[in-house]
Amino acid sequence: MAAGDLQDGKRGAYQAAGVDLGAADEALGRIRAVVASTYTPGVVRGLGAFGGLFALPTGLREPTLVASTDGVGTKTVIATATGRLRQVGRDLVNHCVNDILVQGAEPLFFLDYVASSRLDPGVVAEVVTGVAEACREAGMALLGGETAEMPGVYVTGQLDVAGTVVGIVERAAVVDGGSVAEGDVLLAFESGGLQTNGFSLARHLVLASEDRLNAPLPGDPAGRTVGAALMAEHRSFLPAVRPLLAAGLVKGMAHITGGGLPGNLPRSLPAHLGAAVRRGSWPVPAIFEHLVALGDIGVDDAYAAFNMGVGFVLVVSPTDVDAVRELVAASPAGDWARLHEIGEVVAGSGVRLE
Amino acid sequence: MAAGDLQDGKRGAYQAAGVDLGAADEALGRIRAVVASTYTPGVVRGLGAFGGLFALPTGLREPTLVASTDGVGTKTVIATATGRLRQVGRDLVNHCVNDILVQGAEPLFFLDYVASSRLDPGVVAEVVTGVAEACREAGMALLGGETAEMPGVYVTGQLDVAGTVVGIVERAAVVDGGSVAEGDVLLAFESGGLQTNGFSLARHLVLASEDRLNAPLPGDPAGRTVGAALMAEHRSFLPAVRPLLAAGLVKGMAHITGGGLPGNLPRSLPAHLGAAVRRGSWPVPAIFEHLVALGDIGVDDAYAAFNMGVGFVLVVSPTDVDAVRELVAASPAGDWARLHEIGEVVAGSGVRLE
Repeated sequence: MAAGDLQDGKRGAYQAAGVDLGAADEALGRIRAVVASTYTPGVVRGLGAFGGLFALPTGLREPTLVASTDGVGTKTVIATATGRLRQVGRDLVNHCVNDILVQGAEPLFFLDYVASSRLDPGVVAEVVTGVAEACREAGMALLGGETAEMPGVYVTGQLDVAGTVVGIVERAAVVDGGSVAEGDVLLAFESGGLQTNGFSLARHLVLASEDRLNAPLPGDPAGRTVGAALMAEHRSFLPAVRPLLAAGLVKGMAHITGGGLPGNLPRSLPAHLGAAVRRGSWPVPAIFEHLVALGDIGVDDAYAAFNMGVGFVLVVSPTDVDAVRELVAASPAGDWARLHEIGEVVAGSGVRLE
Repeated sequence: MAAGDLQDGKRGAYQAAGVDLGAADEALGRIRAVVASTYTPGVVRGLGAFGGLFALPTGLREPTLVASTDGVGTKTVIATATGRLRQVGRDLVNHCVNDILVQGAEPLFFLDYVASSRLDPGVVAEVVTGVAEACREAGMALLGGETAEMPGVYVTGQLDVAGTVVGIVERAAVVDGGSVAEGDVLLAFESGGLQTNGFSLARHLVLASEDRLNAPLPGDPAGRTVGAALMAEHRSFLPAVRPLLAAGLVKGMAHITGGGLPGNLPRSLPAHLGAAVRRGSWPVPAIFEHLVALGDIGVDDAYAAFNMGVGFVLVVSPTDVDAVRELVAASPAGDWARLHEIGEVVAGSGVRLE
């Protein structure tokens, strides 16, 4: 649905909820402005008002769409408890962008879904503002979305946030790990936190005592509370990786989501190859040490539940490591875009933690 | 995400939930088979495993994507209470297909999202089976999906079901109502029930007394219970409308969703035109009479909350009415594809119920 429709949909939902439309109008004004701010040249405006229209980019020989739907899990609960709803909007988009980035796709447009037992227009506006911010940063349009009020389905005060990204890639440029060979190097970007996975376990550990969320995080160089560290941004690796794709320097990529390194790294490798990963070769953020200590969690369980500090992995030829480091350093990505050589591709299968 | 990934994602969710993987394996086997059964030639297999890949159809001069995200609202609650989860999977897809059909788009692929406090593999398999059935009937691929377990966010035993459709249309063939003129005819397809809107009000009326859901629906020619009538399929109007689009006989279309005729019909018309709709010109299913009587709901409120029997409206030139009727009668749509002349386009704005 187009922006006008998005607003109408959200308005309809507010009216159905008996929400004060004065407050809703203010929120709708914010939503209208942030949605419009994401519009890229591909968005077709003024043609009807039911679905969102997007003109396909031209010039690709075999244009291939890549699509992914995802949510942010129960990071929404921590977001609600800490008042950081804009952050989960950003997290949602970045998660989806990374999911199609691993195949080499450039994002075109996004659609969001926000649902709760009753919609608070201010809450929706905050989430959508975060969604729109991250869409703008990725260079894609927020083409549509849906809000749903589902009394009796959602626990009062809680919400779910999901979304769908559609991107495009030249078929011959799809990154599929097919050329990965034994001895290739694993270069990792830091996650900076949990991203959007492992929150049900983290909540179980942290919310067992109410004070824990607001307590200072032991050993955190940034001096954050546990809640703030849990809400660390799920980064978009697109700005750091885009120049590498243009240069054809990446053989495989893995976005470290649910299942951690053991669950995701093998998906970037051919079936006959595995990964040897050296623990200690990258910094593990304090939040993971804290969660592991709280739950007395073993190493294998911790690496299966959490990303343990690795957000995204590149598989590159040993001869390309320096060129990759240079392009990333010159990319518009932030200070976080440091690469760590965390291991290599080996014969066999799965992930061997050393 | 591709089929393999869909399965992995669902498996991961089951494992995280501590679900018996024996039962999950059986469910996963069903999911694997039904997802694969939807694959159209556009699906690109064997290239990586994170996002779903789809090769764009060729031959369009200005290929334009049309995308929409939607849910089925609290029809999920009635589906759970009546054990009709496959139906909400079908409803979800058909709703989305109709939403992009109004702009003339042919669906390419779909992604689903199923979330609950704890995932029951059998429940997920039922929903996904319905999703896949309806995708197959629409000729589109179920390209990906996500399941989410969100304890503390969803009420125990309840679930949410949302999805995103991506379709394509030649830009010059987008149906936008631009050519609609005063005197054009409104032809309506019967909805056969609530489709997927008005369920929060319907539940409020029906679930006030537990027996009401299982009671026979007064005046229902099919002899159904109230619950069965509430779960009537949200039809896909695609098979009936596709031949009309090919023949260029449709000037505007409206899918009658939340907000009913007054909320949706104006979206198919230019700003300076309105619609005069004759009540009594189409059959109103017994379920609406029942809900209106239970709630002592006034006419205007009923038409704003429910579709009142009209599922989808075509705006056509008076000289094309006979040709439209003939093409619909010859279409592969079911017996339900009867057209009713419910009114016409008039000067002004909005919908005048007569």
